[in-house]
This record gives sequence, structure tokens and C-alpha cells, in this order.
Amino acid sequence: MKLPSVFARYRAEIDAELSLALADYDSPLYDMLRYHLGWVDAQGNRQPGPAGKALRPTLCLLAGEAVGADYRAVLPAAAAVELVHNFSLIHDDVQDDDRERRHRPTVWAVWGKPQAINAGTAMRVLAGLVLHRLSERGVPAERQLEAQRLLDESCLRLIEGQYLDISFEARLDVNVSEYLQMVELKTAVLIACSLELGALVGGAELPAVHAFGELGRNLGLAFQVRDDLLGIWGDEAKTGKPVGSDIRRRKKSLPIVYALERAEGAARAALAEIYRSGVDDRALATVLGILDASGARAQAERMATACCDRARTEMARLALPVEARRNLEEMAVFLANREF
Amino acid sequence: MKLPSVFARYRAEIDAELSLALADYDSPLYDMLRYHLGWVDAQGNRQPGPAGKALRPTLCLLAGEAVGADYRAVLPAAAAVELVHNFSLIHDDVQDDDRERRHRPTVWAVWGKPQAINAGTAMRVLAGLVLHRLSERGVPAERQLEAQRLLDESCLRLIEGQYLDISFEARLDVNVSEYLQMVELKTAVLIACSLELGALVGGAELPAVHAFGELGRNLGLAFQVRDDLLGIWGDEAKTGKPVGSDIRRRKKSLPIVYALERAEGAARAALAEIYRSGVDDRALATVLGILDASGARAQAERMATACCDRARTEMARLALPVEARRNLEEMAVFLANREF
Repeated sequence: MKLPSVFARYRAEIDAELSLALADYDSPLYDMLRYHLGWVDAQGNRQPGPAGKALRPTLCLLAGEAVGADYRAVLPAAAAVELVHNFSLIHDDVQDDDRERRHRPTVWAVWGKPQAINAGTAMRVLAGLVLHRLSERGVPAERQLEAQRLLDESCLRLIEGQYLDISFEARLDVNVSEYLQMVELKTAVLIACSLELGALVGGAELPAVHAFGELGRNLGLAFQVRDDLLGIWGDEAKTGKPVGSDIRRRKKSLPIVYALERAEGAARAALAEIYRSGVDDRALATVLGILDASGARAQAERMATACCDRARTEMARLALPVEARRNLEEMAVFLANREF
Repeated sequence: MKLPSVFARYRAEIDAELSLALADYDSPLYDMLRYHLGWVDAQGNRQPGPAGKALRPTLCLLAGEAVGADYRAVLPAAAAVELVHNFSLIHDDVQDDDRERRHRPTVWAVWGKPQAINAGTAMRVLAGLVLHRLSERGVPAERQLEAQRLLDESCLRLIEGQYLDISFEARLDVNVSEYLQMVELKTAVLIACSLELGALVGGAELPAVHAFGELGRNLGLAFQVRDDLLGIWGDEAKTGKPVGSDIRRRKKSLPIVYALERAEGAARAALAEIYRSGVDDRALATVLGILDASGARAQAERMATACCDRARTEMARLALPVEARRNLEEMAVFLANREF
């Protein structure tokens, strides 16, 4: 399973737009942002590090093209969603105490938590500022205001999701429905926003914008459920993370929440106790056994497929040009089945 | 010295606009914001706590009136600057490890730092959203976009100031000029932005908006220098903080930075050593003695007065209605000389 070719098509221009978003800012504050984005090392020297897939900006541009716009006019919106995503990663790492991301120390591990909080918030503010570049691309002021509002409302939902996620840490009774509500807010809303923004800025009418939102919501859920599967059963050679890494970190991802809800008696008690007290190699094997017995893996795979199918139904409802439809379908299948 | 009467004039409507800004949000995330704003207690029960002076929104409305607008049209901008100010306080408390603000536990002291980070960022995002209410008050879309941009650019400056402030913690060689650059960014820029936004939204032309910015920058510096004086020599009965409280917290406020720059030999060494190792009662007396000998207090007082004078020169340049001029002059004198 390869990365869909549409990722490569936009990549250079997404990177250029992101670079432009930070070009006028030279306080050392912004070195932290450039470091996080993989452009410089911790000393500020140009030394590209590993970057993400740029999933959200790619979806944003795809939606813009799908409604008939030149994707270049949509680039500021694409940069904005990527900056919001990265703001959330910087704060996430602080909140979760994670010292490593993409094989490098996280921002807080280098500069300390107080400064990393500044870096994350600055990234979030820059996301709003980059949207002003839409003026130069002929997007009317009223539509720009709608884009700002959509980005901000989506960002609040994302923070509400992060709030829930942190509040779940202290609980072992989170059920699947609560879990899905949390990941919808924390992950799916911004992926939906990426498509909505692309359609909005591309000139679509509101009903079409909403349909792209619904499509994106399902893509986002498929993406997250697949992420949860990879966090437990992913192939280290492909994901870069050892098998069971989410379990070692005691993350309450979907398979665990499902097993805690479904397992009974000794199995449930063992799982709860391990999640309370810590996970060594033996406990990891026990947890994997309980997950197998509960059918958690197959259930998560069914859910990813169901979300992918719902996304494709939404696509069928939108009368899309053939090329756009093909790209979005390829994306849906990739997100629900990817191995990295 | 009383609070200028103009504070009371706008207060109820500022509070109503802020209340409206949060009205549609009911996730428990927002309880932290309502708590911080002094509307509810830590359990979410309506129990008003002590509130701030609402200096920034008051300045914003004053500027709007000064350029001839109905201040009610400017209320969303006033709410926005107050929300940005409060976002910065929530994150500040996390970053500085401060457990108390206005005689109550800070947000992080109640909910923990990870959730307080969420609360602060959500407050910042809400500030952008409240500006959309300007549409209902007849502000054209282009001007709204300018307002969004001004608020965001000012917010980045504020974060740059916070970055500098934190980076100064590890240094004893910060000079007065660096200190002034830091407080200009951290404090004066948002006070300037409050006046600029009021003028902009009130319909002023750009040169007038900039003149309000320059006026606000000087008011902001006067405010901060006075704050630094009160943090050391303020009357506990009026400020609510014990004499020398900034020294006990080893804050490098202006008088200390001035003394570290000016003092020589044994005095400088003693001051530096105390700031390195901690401040007990005896050390506090030593520091106060060194500050006296260096003339730090008189120097800070001269600087506050000079900023106030520059602000009044700016006012004279703007052809303001008599009432607005009187209110702004009263405000300048208050900020530079207040005892609380």
C-alpha cells in the first residue's frame, strides 16, 4: 500500500506556502516552530528533519479542486489547517509528557514546557494570519471571514476533544461511544474542516461545504481508528513504532476501550489492573491476549471499513468531477487500510 | 486616587458582551474559562469572584467613542482584547508556576497544567470568534478582517514578549533596554492594540489608528512601570500584595534590572547572589536597601511620568472631542500614578 500520488502533486507548494507563513517572523520564538516543522535543527541550522504526510492540507486542496477552483487559490487555507494541526501536536506533547516525535526530541524536551506552550500558541495564531493571504488570491472578504470562523470553531472542537482525552486518563470506565465522541472532536473535526475550508474557499455553496464536512468527518474517524490499530499491531518497519507501543504507554485507544467494555470477570480485572499499575513485557502479552479474545481487532477493522464506506457514500452524493472523485476514493481507501 | 469614572460607565456592557462570547459553549472545558473570569466557582456554581479592572476593553471603547462611533458597535472588539489578556494570564500562571491569582487558586492549581493549557488556548480562540459579532453592528467585512489581523499580530508580539520574559529568568545580566523591549511586547502591545482596535472598528482612518497605537504603547509602558513599582513598594491594604512581593518571587522587574545594571562591587554581588539563591526576610531588607541606594525607585517613577507625558503629547496630536480627551488624560494620569 503506497501513499496516494495526490500527496506528491501538491507537496512542494504546500511547503512553500508554510514557509511563507513564517517568513516575516524572526524572533527566536519562531525557531521552535521551524524546528517542530522539521525545517531546522535545535540550534536553528537549516537541517531538514522528518516531516509529516501533510494529510490535512492535501485534503483541503483536493476539496478546492473538486469544486472547480484552481488549487493555488486555496493554498493559504491548506497552510492554515496544517498549522492548527501542528499547534495541537506541540501542546499535546507537553500535556502528555512525550519526549519524542518523529525520532526527534519534542519542542518541550529541547526548550522546556513554558516555552513550548508559547510555541504552540504562536503556531495557532499564525494559522489565522496565513488566511489573510486569501485576499491576494481573489477570495472575497465575506468568504474569508467565514473561513476564519470555520477554522476557529473547528479549533475549539479540537480543544474540547483534547480536554476529554485528558479527562479520560483518570478513568477505566470510558465506553466506546464516549471514545468515539472524543476522537471525533480531537481528530475528525480538523480533517473535516480541511475539506470544508477547501470547498468554501474554492467557492462552493454552503450545502456542498457541509457535505464535504460529513465526508471529512468519516475520513477522520477511519484515519483515527486505523491509527489505533497501527499503534498496537502495526509493523515496526513501516510505522517506526514497536508493536504494542500504545499499550506500553497505557493509551486508551479504541481496541482497549472496546475490550474494557466487552471483557468480563478475570480478563477485565487483569486488563484494568495492568492499565492502573504499568505495562512490562509480560503484561503486554497478557493485554494482547485479552484483545484477541474480545475480538477488539476485528471490531476496529470493521469500524474503519464502515467509516470508509460512509465517506464514499457522501462522495457519491456530491457530483464530483471524475478526477477528484478518483483521488478522494483513493484517499479514503488509503486512510482506512494504511500500514504507516 | 480613585478609579476614573469611565471604568464604571462601560462595565455592565463589557461584562454582558463577554458573557455572550461564551454563551453557546457548554463543554466542561469552558467551566475553566468561566472560573478564571470570576463568574463561577471551581464546581461551576454561579458565585462571582473578584474580577479585574477591565482596563483593555475600557480603553478600546474610549478610543471608539473618541473617533465618533457609538461605543456599543465596538463592544465585540472590547471583549476580544479582554479575552486575549485572560488567555495570557491563564498560560502565564502555568508557565510561572503561580498557584494564586486574585485570592483564588489559578486554573492549573484546580484542574492541572494540561487542562489549563487547553483553557488558555480556548480563550484565545474565542477572542477571534467574538469579533464576528461586529457584522451585526454594521462593521464592513474588510474592516473586520483588518481587526482580526491586528488582534492576531498583537497577540504574536505578546507571545514574543512572554518568550523573552521566560528567557530572562535564567539571566542576571538583563539590561534596562532589554527589559523595556520585553515589557513593550508583553504588556504595552496589547494595551496599544486595545486603542487601535477601538479606533479601527469605530471607523477611523489608518493614520489615526496608528496614533492611537502610539498613545497606547506609552500608556502601556506607564502601566507596567507603575505595576513594577507597586510590586515592590505598593501598600498591601490597597494592592492586596505584601510589600516586596515581586522581590520574594525573584521577579526581575524594572527597579531590580536598573539596580543590577547600576550597582557596583559588593552591592551588585549581594543582589545577584540573593536573586540566585532565594529571598528571606533579611535578604528582602538588603535588596530594598540596595534599590534605595541605586535610586531605582526614583528612576522608575521618572520613567512612568515620562511615558504618561508622551501619551499626552500623542493625545494632543489627535484632534479629539473634549470629553474623550478628558477621559484619556484622566486614564493616563491614573495608570502612571495609581496605587492599586
